[in-house]
Amino acid sequence: MRYELYYWPTIQGRGEFVRLALEETGADYVDVARRSGKRGVAAMMKFIEGGRSARPPFAPPFLKAGKLVIGQTANILLYLGGRLGLAPRDEAGRLWVHQLQLTITDLVVLIHDTHHPITGYLYYEEQRAAAKLATKYFWRHRLPKFLRYFERVLANSGGPYLIGRKLTYADLSLFQIVEGLRYAFPKRMKRFERKVPRVVALHDRVARRPRIAAYLASPRRIAFSQWGIYRYFKELDR
Amino acid sequence: MRYELYYWPTIQGRGEFVRLALEETGADYVDVARRSGKRGVAAMMKFIEGGRSARPPFAPPFLKAGKLVIGQTANILLYLGGRLGLAPRDEAGRLWVHQLQLTITDLVVLIHDTHHPITGYLYYEEQRAAAKLATKYFWRHRLPKFLRYFERVLANSGGPYLIGRKLTYADLSLFQIVEGLRYAFPKRMKRFERKVPRVVALHDRVARRPRIAAYLASPRRIAFSQWGIYRYFKELDR
Repeated sequence: MRYELYYWPTIQGRGEFVRLALEETGADYVDVARRSGKRGVAAMMKFIEGGRSARPPFAPPFLKAGKLVIGQTANILLYLGGRLGLAPRDEAGRLWVHQLQLTITDLVVLIHDTHHPITGYLYYEEQRAAAKLATKYFWRHRLPKFLRYFERVLANSGGPYLIGRKLTYADLSLFQIVEGLRYAFPKRMKRFERKVPRVVALHDRVARRPRIAAYLASPRRIAFSQWGIYRYFKELDR
Repeated sequence: MRYELYYWPTIQGRGEFVRLALEETGADYVDVARRSGKRGVAAMMKFIEGGRSARPPFAPPFLKAGKLVIGQTANILLYLGGRLGLAPRDEAGRLWVHQLQLTITDLVVLIHDTHHPITGYLYYEEQRAAAKLATKYFWRHRLPKFLRYFERVLANSGGPYLIGRKLTYADLSLFQIVEGLRYAFPKRMKRFERKVPRVVALHDRVARRPRIAAYLASPRRIAFSQWGIYRYFKELDR
């Protein structure tokens, strides 16, 4: 099966969580909008505009797998998890990994909202005061709560991965959380990392996996920028 | 199987999406924190604090089903959907309904953030200016995009429900979106509803289902208030 991933071609964004799962498992996939340039983006928008499709995706990313078109990042990973060996086979295990992924999804929204708390329809500069306040509370309360939760899950599972010895797509996503926080908040993150050593160790272990390491060093990996979920503003990173 | 729902006892909140699924199907369930008062909330917090549990939930709501403890609203509905007959049996259908639910989940965050765009750790009054701006863009761009999407899904499925003739948990959740918007933004919603007649018709149809109607009229249904996802502020409802 050749999977077709549809996502914005110039940012990691939410598509990156899917790319990491496909890359780690050496899956046969095409990153459609990246390969075909403007034509690829046009093909993506056609799905979104949907016409009479009974099951149109609301937004990228979405995955085409044969006749199936699957939207919502966590839903794509739920689908791929079983097929790519990135989730347990039993129902309880599958639900647990999906639950972890949905908690990561919640965190991703909060991270994005540090720089755009009011709306994505205004520039950062138009909501800077709100962003500063949002960032303050995010780092004081919200992020510690999330990362300490994952730290506890890792402690209880015995690690090195969230469910124990076996890698799942949620581990790849948690790796991406740490990657992005290091980009957006280098100073804050440097101070904070000592409080969540197991999360950091998971990140480092994922980064060393051969296929992930090769991917990160390849041109397939889009660089972080000021247009994704994670953005660097010096004034937010005291 | 007697299900145990754990959620805050005084608000509809995210627990309501689960309550509606349990009520519609006449499932045998206990709303633990509501039934047992302070003891129930203490039992809920014990799960959250987790101790050495290998699979602690991050936050309410979560559902106890036998030995399983399932967290994240959409994940609970994914689990219940198959068991309560509120989702198709085939994989493609299950993924599609879950995809719709995750899109509703995204919308719920945006609705909450109209009154608390900066952080839930500050009062509304401390972020009123940001809330006004967030609300303006929410109503101008975001909400229309979401509700028109569901309108299109209903048009393409033939209705009256999101996948056609059969009710799913996503319909119950979309009902709750309309209910809440009517509470929080009565004037704005009144003007907007004519643009999404299929969504409104779905809401009305769900409200007339015998078990839902009985539930809504019962003391089990908690009233909307100023403490949930949906809050009414006159100044946000021009």
